[in-house]
Amino acid sequence: MRSEWNGFVGGKWENEVNVRDFIQKNYTPYDGDASFLAGPTQNTKDLWDQVLELQKQERAAGGVLDMDTKVVSTITSHGPGYLDKSKETIVGFQTDKPFKRSLQPYGGIRMAEKACSDNGYEVDPEISEFFSTHRKTHNAGCFDAYNQEMRACRSAHIITGLPDAYGRGRIIGDYRRVALYGIDYLIEDKQAQKDSTGRVMTDDVIRLREELSEQMIALKMMKEMAASYGCDISKPATNVQEAIQATYFGYLCSVKEQNGAAMSLGRTSTFIDCYAERDLKNGTFTEEQIQEFIDHFIMKLRCVKFARTPEYNQIFAGDPVWVTESIGGVGVDGRHMVTKMSFRYLHTLENLGAAPEPNLTVLWSTRLPENFKKFCARISITTSSIQYENDDLMRVTHGDDYGIACCVSSMVIGKEMQFFGARANLAKCLLYALNGGIDEKTKKQVGPKYRPYEGDVLEYDKVMDKFMDMMEWQADVYVNTLNIIHYMHDKYCYERAEMALHDKNVKRYFATGIAGLSIVADSLSAIKYAKVEVIRDEDGIITDFKTTGDFPKYGNDDDRVDMIAQEIVHKFMTAIRRHHTYRDGVPTTSILTITSNVTYGKATGNTPDGRRAGQPFAPGANPMHGRDSHGAVASLASVSKLPFKDAQDGISNTFTIIPGALGKEDQVFAGDIELDLNK
Amino acid sequence: MRSEWNGFVGGKWENEVNVRDFIQKNYTPYDGDASFLAGPTQNTKDLWDQVLELQKQERAAGGVLDMDTKVVSTITSHGPGYLDKSKETIVGFQTDKPFKRSLQPYGGIRMAEKACSDNGYEVDPEISEFFSTHRKTHNAGCFDAYNQEMRACRSAHIITGLPDAYGRGRIIGDYRRVALYGIDYLIEDKQAQKDSTGRVMTDDVIRLREELSEQMIALKMMKEMAASYGCDISKPATNVQEAIQATYFGYLCSVKEQNGAAMSLGRTSTFIDCYAERDLKNGTFTEEQIQEFIDHFIMKLRCVKFARTPEYNQIFAGDPVWVTESIGGVGVDGRHMVTKMSFRYLHTLENLGAAPEPNLTVLWSTRLPENFKKFCARISITTSSIQYENDDLMRVTHGDDYGIACCVSSMVIGKEMQFFGARANLAKCLLYALNGGIDEKTKKQVGPKYRPYEGDVLEYDKVMDKFMDMMEWQADVYVNTLNIIHYMHDKYCYERAEMALHDKNVKRYFATGIAGLSIVADSLSAIKYAKVEVIRDEDGIITDFKTTGDFPKYGNDDDRVDMIAQEIVHKFMTAIRRHHTYRDGVPTTSILTITSNVTYGKATGNTPDGRRAGQPFAPGANPMHGRDSHGAVASLASVSKLPFKDAQDGISNTFTIIPGALGKEDQVFAGDIELDLNK
Repeated sequence: MRSEWNGFVGGKWENEVNVRDFIQKNYTPYDGDASFLAGPTQNTKDLWDQVLELQKQERAAGGVLDMDTKVVSTITSHGPGYLDKSKETIVGFQTDKPFKRSLQPYGGIRMAEKACSDNGYEVDPEISEFFSTHRKTHNAGCFDAYNQEMRACRSAHIITGLPDAYGRGRIIGDYRRVALYGIDYLIEDKQAQKDSTGRVMTDDVIRLREELSEQMIALKMMKEMAASYGCDISKPATNVQEAIQATYFGYLCSVKEQNGAAMSLGRTSTFIDCYAERDLKNGTFTEEQIQEFIDHFIMKLRCVKFARTPEYNQIFAGDPVWVTESIGGVGVDGRHMVTKMSFRYLHTLENLGAAPEPNLTVLWSTRLPENFKKFCARISITTSSIQYENDDLMRVTHGDDYGIACCVSSMVIGKEMQFFGARANLAKCLLYALNGGIDEKTKKQVGPKYRPYEGDVLEYDKVMDKFMDMMEWQADVYVNTLNIIHYMHDKYCYERAEMALHDKNVKRYFATGIAGLSIVADSLSAIKYAKVEVIRDEDGIITDFKTTGDFPKYGNDDDRVDMIAQEIVHKFMTAIRRHHTYRDGVPTTSILTITSNVTYGKATGNTPDGRRAGQPFAPGANPMHGRDSHGAVASLASVSKLPFKDAQDGISNTFTIIPGALGKEDQVFAGDIELDLNK
Repeated sequence: MRSEWNGFVGGKWENEVNVRDFIQKNYTPYDGDASFLAGPTQNTKDLWDQVLELQKQERAAGGVLDMDTKVVSTITSHGPGYLDKSKETIVGFQTDKPFKRSLQPYGGIRMAEKACSDNGYEVDPEISEFFSTHRKTHNAGCFDAYNQEMRACRSAHIITGLPDAYGRGRIIGDYRRVALYGIDYLIEDKQAQKDSTGRVMTDDVIRLREELSEQMIALKMMKEMAASYGCDISKPATNVQEAIQATYFGYLCSVKEQNGAAMSLGRTSTFIDCYAERDLKNGTFTEEQIQEFIDHFIMKLRCVKFARTPEYNQIFAGDPVWVTESIGGVGVDGRHMVTKMSFRYLHTLENLGAAPEPNLTVLWSTRLPENFKKFCARISITTSSIQYENDDLMRVTHGDDYGIACCVSSMVIGKEMQFFGARANLAKCLLYALNGGIDEKTKKQVGPKYRPYEGDVLEYDKVMDKFMDMMEWQADVYVNTLNIIHYMHDKYCYERAEMALHDKNVKRYFATGIAGLSIVADSLSAIKYAKVEVIRDEDGIITDFKTTGDFPKYGNDDDRVDMIAQEIVHKFMTAIRRHHTYRDGVPTTSILTITSNVTYGKATGNTPDGRRAGQPFAPGANPMHGRDSHGAVASLASVSKLPFKDAQDGISNTFTIIPGALGKEDQVFAGDIELDLNK
């Protein structure tokens, strides 16, 4: 066994890249309570005060403190940056100083230019010229390949939020590999992977070989970047501090090269705990020191920033990075995976205060230890900063080494990735079905010229028939648009750093998404159970509805409408599955919008459920605002009927609870909690 | 009919891009003699004196007069350049001044750097950095995807001259389209082509759509570039001067963006003649004026130059561009296609003097008019500057609107292109067969570890058996290397200007090549008909041969050895055909080396035919130097037995005739003539 691994239990992980095996052989489940935790050190307080001061300055400067306009960001483009070198135990910033946003034009030069100009900066004209003339970008590639229908659908927002002008994100490198194996071994492993490709040079094999080469280049650059901070990550980490530092460096390389819509961290805490336990046993570090490392690590993750445009911020409000870290869960052998480190990660919310990033996500199971459950509840109450997801459900398909990318996208770390695909606006699709493909807002023919709805009162079967036809069309143009996006992203903005920390044979999810589910369900319910008359404008286009009588509404545990929602999800997913997907990606769908539901609402006319044109959609799979009149449990029950097999990329429910909601004033849940139910 | 076309006979060409139809409907065959030709004007003489002076300066400067080191060449990267604007009737240089070589790093930044540094220039460090870090090149892509076997084969030169560090060339845009249709119509046509791609976005469809977009960008840039010279090429040309100018601008765009191994012109003279005849009839221009336009056009073609390295020049000696123009030939309707313009093009060799460029190639047929044949003979005698190719043979497969790229590669203009593939060194392959894949020079195991030849005397059947096995391996690694090269060339160095002047559905030849044919044929003949003993070195590797007795030698019309040559070509082509080819390219082979045979010889050890290690190969399909002892006709007869169907990319024979060679002192052929027999 390598000397760096002394004290660890050996196994398959010694001779192959297999972090899960290492964790399973070496982690120490912790059933105790939070009393062991250490508070922040003076250095931590000082550093965090610096960050708070920078945040204040950033807000005062209008949202951005500093931007690169000349140096195009790569793993090695910047020298080291510090808050206060003498106090930092975990180091590394995206650029050479904190809060300076890097220039990342591979996704699109106009986007990079706009992100600068909207904040009062200007990209160096030579860079602009170069990326317009000689170095094509992802965005330019997409628009070169789009057809007119795709452009029309994009403009009309019937498919929307597409990652064709920003990085797709949602790819999680297994950053732990850097710590456990060191870069040199990972390069050797990648070379072996490259040597194991077929000798017949088809396009697929050539692409893979080039990607593996790019990955090796990225690994070498990681080593170089770490060295600029005085750290040697060529070999395995020897203690918990080095393990955290190496893991963070792996992640840092990703955010130096990719400005993705969600740049998630993975599932690192249980892994890191193996080192902490060893160091505590050996007396290498104290609990206070270890907590300080974690506090500094989390502080760094809170400082990850990207240059983004107002348009981007409309879709993803709040400047999010989605540095999602998945904590806890239960192993397939039945042991829970909560460790002291699970506590330490959450404890940062106390040591540093509440924060939306990193997106600390508890993989919830009924079998988590009671002490940890209580601790989570306490932190939720005091900080409103924890996301919960259903481990009991996801473990079935993903095992016990998956993580969450973004909010709800589950993937096995280092073995699966996702082609992120934004959303199809189903509410708009329903309106297109009624108007024979004519957009209700622009009056342009966007969809196919199917026969419009002809009567004055909407009949359920007739509407459903038209809706299904239009949904088939929508799925077709949507998937093919995504095929182009992902082809071009791989071509012009390949995630070499993240993919360097994946296996060779990666499973690729081809993620799609639904927006407006509750509106469609309620609209169809109104058509079925009440009387919906159409109101046409002077051109005969249906632009409004008059609904008489009551109808069951999604969110009240009423099967009459919940089954409609379920059917729509199933039919949509079936339509998606019919199509060719880039790189044989496995199609999935999510019902997920946290903030973009506002934008989608703006782009959509009046709907038969009574929603007025421009009004926001409900987020994700939520019932429409205020319509869930039968209490929280009924509301959750409706959501929980949606079939996971048809929405495997996740179902999100944003849920606010006040103390009285569940019937008891002393309920442990209180305050605003956002739940993502992945059922 | 459009007003620019007044006076032309209409046809299909009016409503679709169809230059051949235009030519067939409008050209005027000319059976007369050369007496109508006009000498050079004073302006022509003055301009040519300027060029000669620049050539002198260039030689004095060591081969290069000026180089761009900062401006990366695109169609629009440079302002207009002139010799003497007031005297030039046809304008346009690659850069903003004559004899200044442009910077073209898309093929490979190191190659561009080396081309500069070897001539005392230095590429701007920012450009170097950019093309190393952010803008990958063709060369970098190839080496990222190569496997170790490919690198070893490349180093050992068993496959050689590969276009992985330079532009592949050998793609002929239909530059006439610019003149006949104008850019605006061509853009419309390309948009229609793009609209006609399938709606299922497979990788192939996406690639094609992006390429068509790039082609449209190139067309727009062509218009812009022409405008900088004060020329409007958006509409069809209205007279012969504009037609020549527009055709030249089309070509000029190609050489502004591509530094290809052969940048050929196509088949323009008969096309241009249609305009000349109309202008002569209308009194628009005189013969003297028209000859002046052609002289100035040809002068410009003689000034096309590229930045190249000594290594490149080793393979392609003499700084060639291969601006091949195909002249004459016979139409499929039986009318010969010689026009007055055929005479005018060749007459430039008299007006301006002899020159290797443009590579004026007569498509020879027994049915060419007698006066033209005599004229060709006269020009050949006085200038040694004409290449002849067999139109009677090529017309069968290619019709009457093909042209020659480089020396012998025939392709239908605008409808076919070629993936150029350099050469397999068959002489080395034979030595590998004897030594079980061990290189006879480096003693490294390069080929597969087959059993080496074991006896002391070479037996024909045993040797052939091993040779065929090794040739199968060579074909495998060769084709797969080319698959990578062409994938990467399309990805990083796509010929958008040339392809913009092609149809949408292009036939792609996947060209391979053979080097060392006569050596292998003679070696196998020696083994079969004489006694060849092997001489092994201390490691048991066969490094030399002792041949006792005489044997038939290729080049003497002796079927005993000529049939061996024929069999080798057939077997090689069969082996090539077995493999997957990029973009379903149709495999072909050429037996063609004009100058690189010297380099190939250096890389190859002693051979059983008695050739010593390092001695040059015979060029192309030539018999080995001095072994064709039965006269010129017998020598040609041997070459002519090689099967065209197995070497469809062309068979080259470099042939020098002195007056006595054909038996008559007053023979019309005299001097040094280089013939490329495409049989």
